[in-house]
Amino acid sequence: MAESMSGLARSHRCTEVSNKLIGTEVTVMGWVQKRRNLGSLIFVDLRDRSGILQLVFDQEVLSEEDYNKANSLRSEYVVAAVGTVEKRSAAINENLKTGDIEIKVHTLRILSESETPPFPIDEKQTVKDELRLKYRYLDLRRPNLQRNLRIRNDVTRMVRNFLGDEGFLEIETPVLGKSTPEGARDYLVPSRVHPGEFYGLPQSPQLFKQLLMCSGFDRYYQIAKCFRDEDLRADRQPEFTQIDMELSFVDVDDVIDVNERLLKKIFKEVLDIDVQLPMLRMTYKEAMDRFGSDKPDMRFGMELTNVSDTVAGCDFMVFKGALENGGSVRGLNAKGLGDLGRKKIDGFVDYAKDFGAKGLAYIQLKSDGTVKSSFAKFMKEEEMDALIKAMDGQAGDLLLFAADKDKVVFDVLGNLRLHIAKQYDMIDKSQYKFLWVTEFPLLEWSDEQNRYTAMHHPFTMPFEEDLEFIDERPGDVRAKAYDIVLNGTELGGGSIRIHQDDIQEKMFEALGFTKEDAYNRFGFLLDAFKFGVPPHAGLAYGLDRLVMWLTGEDSIRDVIAFPKVKDASCLMTQAPGPVDTLQLEELGIELSTPEEE
Amino acid sequence: MAESMSGLARSHRCTEVSNKLIGTEVTVMGWVQKRRNLGSLIFVDLRDRSGILQLVFDQEVLSEEDYNKANSLRSEYVVAAVGTVEKRSAAINENLKTGDIEIKVHTLRILSESETPPFPIDEKQTVKDELRLKYRYLDLRRPNLQRNLRIRNDVTRMVRNFLGDEGFLEIETPVLGKSTPEGARDYLVPSRVHPGEFYGLPQSPQLFKQLLMCSGFDRYYQIAKCFRDEDLRADRQPEFTQIDMELSFVDVDDVIDVNERLLKKIFKEVLDIDVQLPMLRMTYKEAMDRFGSDKPDMRFGMELTNVSDTVAGCDFMVFKGALENGGSVRGLNAKGLGDLGRKKIDGFVDYAKDFGAKGLAYIQLKSDGTVKSSFAKFMKEEEMDALIKAMDGQAGDLLLFAADKDKVVFDVLGNLRLHIAKQYDMIDKSQYKFLWVTEFPLLEWSDEQNRYTAMHHPFTMPFEEDLEFIDERPGDVRAKAYDIVLNGTELGGGSIRIHQDDIQEKMFEALGFTKEDAYNRFGFLLDAFKFGVPPHAGLAYGLDRLVMWLTGEDSIRDVIAFPKVKDASCLMTQAPGPVDTLQLEELGIELSTPEEE
Repeated sequence: MAESMSGLARSHRCTEVSNKLIGTEVTVMGWVQKRRNLGSLIFVDLRDRSGILQLVFDQEVLSEEDYNKANSLRSEYVVAAVGTVEKRSAAINENLKTGDIEIKVHTLRILSESETPPFPIDEKQTVKDELRLKYRYLDLRRPNLQRNLRIRNDVTRMVRNFLGDEGFLEIETPVLGKSTPEGARDYLVPSRVHPGEFYGLPQSPQLFKQLLMCSGFDRYYQIAKCFRDEDLRADRQPEFTQIDMELSFVDVDDVIDVNERLLKKIFKEVLDIDVQLPMLRMTYKEAMDRFGSDKPDMRFGMELTNVSDTVAGCDFMVFKGALENGGSVRGLNAKGLGDLGRKKIDGFVDYAKDFGAKGLAYIQLKSDGTVKSSFAKFMKEEEMDALIKAMDGQAGDLLLFAADKDKVVFDVLGNLRLHIAKQYDMIDKSQYKFLWVTEFPLLEWSDEQNRYTAMHHPFTMPFEEDLEFIDERPGDVRAKAYDIVLNGTELGGGSIRIHQDDIQEKMFEALGFTKEDAYNRFGFLLDAFKFGVPPHAGLAYGLDRLVMWLTGEDSIRDVIAFPKVKDASCLMTQAPGPVDTLQLEELGIELSTPEEE
Repeated sequence: MAESMSGLARSHRCTEVSNKLIGTEVTVMGWVQKRRNLGSLIFVDLRDRSGILQLVFDQEVLSEEDYNKANSLRSEYVVAAVGTVEKRSAAINENLKTGDIEIKVHTLRILSESETPPFPIDEKQTVKDELRLKYRYLDLRRPNLQRNLRIRNDVTRMVRNFLGDEGFLEIETPVLGKSTPEGARDYLVPSRVHPGEFYGLPQSPQLFKQLLMCSGFDRYYQIAKCFRDEDLRADRQPEFTQIDMELSFVDVDDVIDVNERLLKKIFKEVLDIDVQLPMLRMTYKEAMDRFGSDKPDMRFGMELTNVSDTVAGCDFMVFKGALENGGSVRGLNAKGLGDLGRKKIDGFVDYAKDFGAKGLAYIQLKSDGTVKSSFAKFMKEEEMDALIKAMDGQAGDLLLFAADKDKVVFDVLGNLRLHIAKQYDMIDKSQYKFLWVTEFPLLEWSDEQNRYTAMHHPFTMPFEEDLEFIDERPGDVRAKAYDIVLNGTELGGGSIRIHQDDIQEKMFEALGFTKEDAYNRFGFLLDAFKFGVPPHAGLAYGLDRLVMWLTGEDSIRDVIAFPKVKDASCLMTQAPGPVDTLQLEELGIELSTPEEE
């Protein structure tokens, strides 16, 4: 039987009650964390959003009915309690903000009873993911998720106020949009009024935000829901949230400047970390050469070394073949790992193969001065010496080499570098290393589509000085695109957009689009560009991932109130689900595979 | 040919340049509003988000090339100009913020040319809706839409900060949700991973926000996109935005208090209007009795009078019949309209018929003292006198009567009251009359479904003292529901929610749901309620409509950046549109009506 709260008004949240209020009466409401009986006293830990407060019920003072009511309390009951703030009778609990006080209760109402929850409301307990997600409303009561969603709230509030103060206007763009064939799969929404036609849910507000620049809004932002119907990985959700912005009359430095100040503010206010500005910048080319990655983790060294010149004349076929095919030979010096056993090294080789390597050549420089190598027999001694020297190899070091096309070499060594650093604890986790990666390639070759595709999107501005060789060497044209990387994770990225007809035309040519193709895909944007378009640029962050960083969580699910699982379903609401045939009829669609009765 | 802005940096927006800067050099960028040539001078009005600034090009000073470039400028060209701020050479333009200065330009770049736009960028021009929406990006350049979206930005920012300060957490709820059969039609999203199953887009975050209260978040808000696949009226959009909130451990007064302060702040900051608190409150019953409406416009009187008792004994069949059928006879006194001609009065009768009246009885009390009535012949003289007296009829007044079931009478007279007030300019438009309408009926009879349905939703708390007659007189049970009404428009509404099992069960019974029905529809919420649920309540505003009020616009489209038209399509992007058969195959659906080749 639930009692009403009528006549009562909460005076404080649990941890708003402090020893300054000793002697005064308070009314608190919340959930029973636990009850303990001790002689004639009953102690109840009362929990609300703010934390825990101890209630005391004294058999000597309370009526039998009231005492029995207190004695009936169980975990997760919702209660209202009125009583006097007192100094704790027992020892002070240093772990609690309210550890030096308690409430001597004279009036108790049970607002709602509770069955025994399927798992205790306590973040220290490990609970199976499926159970957590089925009972998400209980999971969300646990302190870590309470804290994560509060930090998420704090971050979005901070972002909005910062951007607002910088002259950005928050403008909503449509969720029911046009489906475009380019890129990832859209979620589709059948139209009832136009049977056979569909809306597409937006993968990003890209085209709309560029239109808003054409409309003269100058600076736009939105914290926007975006949708991709792709197979989910651990860190993907079918719907995700972007901090999305666009600015007019700016160049790269302007975008970077405002975003550096935004990130500095967030990291200061959430984590109390002072980010030094300006942040480091590095071109894509340098990032690949030094770290084999366009989002290098800068918290440790172990940089790649290009030894192609050093091994150019050798007879080792793996090296020779790679160089002859236009590839390269590059190495990592895993300092201090020279004495590893064979099994560990084989583990690295297997890891490298996962990223497309045919193998991994190595030289072990053991601490005792001996050298062991998988390929020494193919090399002259002076060639080996030169190689070790090029790698700055010392006794106790492990040198690892990949030889293949650049793309493979970077992928293998970039990932191996991270793998080894994590495995051998080489990363200083107290560091926050921000990095702007700039000058991305404009185009990348797609084997699947047998043409060049836009690395960012087709409206990304190329470096004007590179345009002269866009026909001969399209892959070498640099784009005015930039990513912001933190400790090896891409937090966001963006680009300067093309606002000139002639450059846009060249870009479409390079992508192999006819004018008609281009119009079918982006007609309304191209139309808009006919009527005076300002130079503009933008950037978008993945909010979920940013909050993951700020909360220190490993899973994106832990920073989203109601996430979906890998098959894009919600274990709590059972969405998606079947619908009435009548509804489908109205939409002019039917199921291809009739359901069995 | 578009020039680059490289090497230039905007120093000010147009109206940030003021006479304090006279003699200094500025760099401004924007659109050409218009160009005028005057002797050897060219004047250009440059426009950006902030407003207009005058540029001057002097043939005597500029090179021929530069002068010719300035002379080539046409409306909507985008330019960057560098020059010196000077006092205006010609007369000051009092209408412009920058009307006393001009920029003597020495460097001009044409960043983007423009074709002649399909309509001038000027709000004074009337342009057909279809053209405006097709070229929305140009329409959005017009000052009124610029201002509307800026106000929308200001309002949401204000709301977020106010609610944040009041302890509300912004928490995102899913867009890909579960389709529920209750209420309006959901937009459906076919699932690729689960062929034959569908997500539903949310009509509101109702169930999720109640779950968040179960999770102990205490105070939640969200400015949330909501979706309804209904036939659109002028003030409806398939996607719309709600300011949505929910609070735990509160009663009606708490919800009203925080919202009154929120509204006061918004109206003060946007319109500089001081709203007096507390706002007026009125029960649903009183609102219907006095104004025939649950959202009465309180800016004028012309209240309804119930004359059922007065005409109880008369022989006029229309009155007699209505009373015998359990209905009522009620009248309006349209003061000062007693001398209207027959045609005008017939107009009122026709208007009344639109709202379900079979007719409209009237008494004209002409200024010359004569009386004309459509039904006097059926009444005794003393009956007429009594009726006129009951209506406080004076010479010059027009008395209008409806006789029918209460529902029809209220609908007819409530609407007629508004119609007459608008037609005869009886509304003081400078007034802002806020009103809370409370104590709505819990249930209303649905002829369509042949059962009672929830007037708000099935989780709305009834008045506990009314529960005893929920079986005998379900229609008389009052709900703890409330709407906030401004000048006859509903801005928002909400209710206290049921948090007690036994009351919820009674509610489902009254709605004719079996336990199984209830579980099929709302199972996860009912499950959540088993584990300790706090008393909670909420409210939601229609943001679009609120901004409409604040901007003084008549159409909801004028406060939405990219709205849809009546058939739920977007004239700019051509959404919805056809999609590839391959995409449909992946989703396991096909079109019912094969398209003709």
